[in-house]
Amino acid sequence: MIYLDNSATTKPASSVLNSFYQATERFFANPSSIHQLGGEAEKLLKKSKEQASQLLNVHQDEVIFTSGGTEGNNLAIKGIALKHQGRGKHIITTEIEHPSVYEACNSLEDLGFTITYLPVDKNGVISIEDLTNSIRNDTILVSMMHVNNELGSIQPIKKIGEILKQYPKIFFHVDNVQGMGKIPLELTNSGIDLCAISGHKLHGLKGTGILYVNKKTTMYPLLHGGNQERSLRSGTENLAGAVSIVKALRLIKEREKTEVKDMYQLQEFLRNHLAKMEGVVINTPEEAAPHIMNISVPGLKPEVIIHMLGEKQIYISTKSACSSKQADESKILAACGYGADRSTSALRISMSYDTTESEINTFLKALEEAVNQLKAVME
Amino acid sequence: MIYLDNSATTKPASSVLNSFYQATERFFANPSSIHQLGGEAEKLLKKSKEQASQLLNVHQDEVIFTSGGTEGNNLAIKGIALKHQGRGKHIITTEIEHPSVYEACNSLEDLGFTITYLPVDKNGVISIEDLTNSIRNDTILVSMMHVNNELGSIQPIKKIGEILKQYPKIFFHVDNVQGMGKIPLELTNSGIDLCAISGHKLHGLKGTGILYVNKKTTMYPLLHGGNQERSLRSGTENLAGAVSIVKALRLIKEREKTEVKDMYQLQEFLRNHLAKMEGVVINTPEEAAPHIMNISVPGLKPEVIIHMLGEKQIYISTKSACSSKQADESKILAACGYGADRSTSALRISMSYDTTESEINTFLKALEEAVNQLKAVME
Repeated sequence: MIYLDNSATTKPASSVLNSFYQATERFFANPSSIHQLGGEAEKLLKKSKEQASQLLNVHQDEVIFTSGGTEGNNLAIKGIALKHQGRGKHIITTEIEHPSVYEACNSLEDLGFTITYLPVDKNGVISIEDLTNSIRNDTILVSMMHVNNELGSIQPIKKIGEILKQYPKIFFHVDNVQGMGKIPLELTNSGIDLCAISGHKLHGLKGTGILYVNKKTTMYPLLHGGNQERSLRSGTENLAGAVSIVKALRLIKEREKTEVKDMYQLQEFLRNHLAKMEGVVINTPEEAAPHIMNISVPGLKPEVIIHMLGEKQIYISTKSACSSKQADESKILAACGYGADRSTSALRISMSYDTTESEINTFLKALEEAVNQLKAVME
Repeated sequence: MIYLDNSATTKPASSVLNSFYQATERFFANPSSIHQLGGEAEKLLKKSKEQASQLLNVHQDEVIFTSGGTEGNNLAIKGIALKHQGRGKHIITTEIEHPSVYEACNSLEDLGFTITYLPVDKNGVISIEDLTNSIRNDTILVSMMHVNNELGSIQPIKKIGEILKQYPKIFFHVDNVQGMGKIPLELTNSGIDLCAISGHKLHGLKGTGILYVNKKTTMYPLLHGGNQERSLRSGTENLAGAVSIVKALRLIKEREKTEVKDMYQLQEFLRNHLAKMEGVVINTPEEAAPHIMNISVPGLKPEVIIHMLGEKQIYISTKSACSSKQADESKILAACGYGADRSTSALRISMSYDTTESEINTFLKALEEAVNQLKAVME
């Protein structure tokens, strides 16, 4: 099996899954119970939070365990919107966000909010000028992804954070689900108030996530209840889930340090070969995250190619998994200005640190065969 | 170890944890991915949903997988409130709800909603007359627990459902986190529109839950995104979590059928012995769920007793875990009309189907010793 759909989800690391298993078995008590078993569970939870905060270089109170990236993004956006709507009802985001940001913002329009969706250039990057021009007196939130899930394009988050520091009343939320473990992003003193990550994109487990919420940020919690997680996310803590995502985070951070150069090289190798392939055009810009390569094969149905590769146990995807069952066109590619021939024929190859050159070679050969075969049929 | 804090959380069944492990390993793909691996994951998800719907005797589209009871309750309450606020902003609940319902309702007051909190009698049960009297033209939701988490008292949900059928514009949400697997509750044609359960109260895993949402119910989703779960709960599906809660549900339903009588007998045994114990008063009413027994030891600090029992590896709790770190008084007991002597000295013994008479005997002896020892110190 050659698995190249790591932006949709990654294969959980055995050690992460084993940590989950052991924590579930040994520390099953409710961390809020005041008896000794509860105390032990609470201690482990605190330790997990401490480790997470060290890995993210933030304060431990700023780490909120969630059920995933979608929850983190929704909590950030709606939590700010519902809490601070008295001060303003304007939110700025972009045209190329993941549905968990885009649709969350969109849904707020029904509740009387106005959303500005910033356009992007051919490379999938917003313009800083557009951003500053769109700031209004009633703007309460800027929500933006770090790395785009379909293209791999990178937003200038650091620069935007610096600019937004001049607007202390505007909260800044970053969806870092695709960037974590690939592109470093400093949180402390960055101007970023909220930042979401997801466990299952880091060889962790589905149903786990972390939302960074800096200390000055107040929100309307989506989940009220027993006041767990600084009262921002109630519900009996998924302790084993927390243990598992912290382990996954530690492992990916280590690999990022030592292996990200190799991944860039592998991406370059992939790009060079794809560039020479007849009928294939490359959509991912030169400056992109190392794990994603988006291409189009105009005139061919991407599902057919995916099926043909699947028969050889090679797995890639069309657009993002979270919108793959919707309309044919990639909204992201359309936003970049590509025509329908390209935005409806996109394929995404997304690697992990386990991906090898030999796998990429096998994939390239299989892709070329599939494209040639389909073109021959159509002629 | 004698674990009698099953209302806070249960020990996960080995077979449930193993199912989670295996599903995570074998079906790690994103169910929304269109390649074969995604298709296999999607198939397993559908099968899980089918099984859940059979166990709950509802349609499979009516099963929404969540991250737990708190999410289910919050989604039900806020989802209805935010969607249907144009029709009215009045909600009816009770004074003895779990914090995930009570605080969710409470938080809506900040958003302009009016909440009626129905009082309860000495037995922790609301009056039907109070309920019908509190219905207004702008009432959009009644939210009520089936079984109280501290007392075990049971609300007349079936009767309330029948009454609310006469008000087709009022949604009826039931928090069945404590009732599931103990007290049968029919959902279809019951007048109930929404019903939340939690995996970790059923020997399942933390971070898993199900919200029943009947077909006619529309909501504002708390989590927008990739339109998973009928668009009511977006986010990459926690497939292994879904598999695990369905297994836990099946096991508890089987045990309910064959073992609930034994549990009632064990509760009776416990009650009879506690009734004879000096200094102990019983708070749980005669008609209650079989797994919970709430007592008070007026004059003694419950934390001290819990600590003394803990030294013998016997684990019980004060009030609910979700409010155990807050103020000393049990709001539930206060709502039942008990004075501070009783509402600040409560202990909860909560059993599972694994609890044995021998364990209860050991507990009773240890409790008696602890109470006598403390009384002696104080005299």
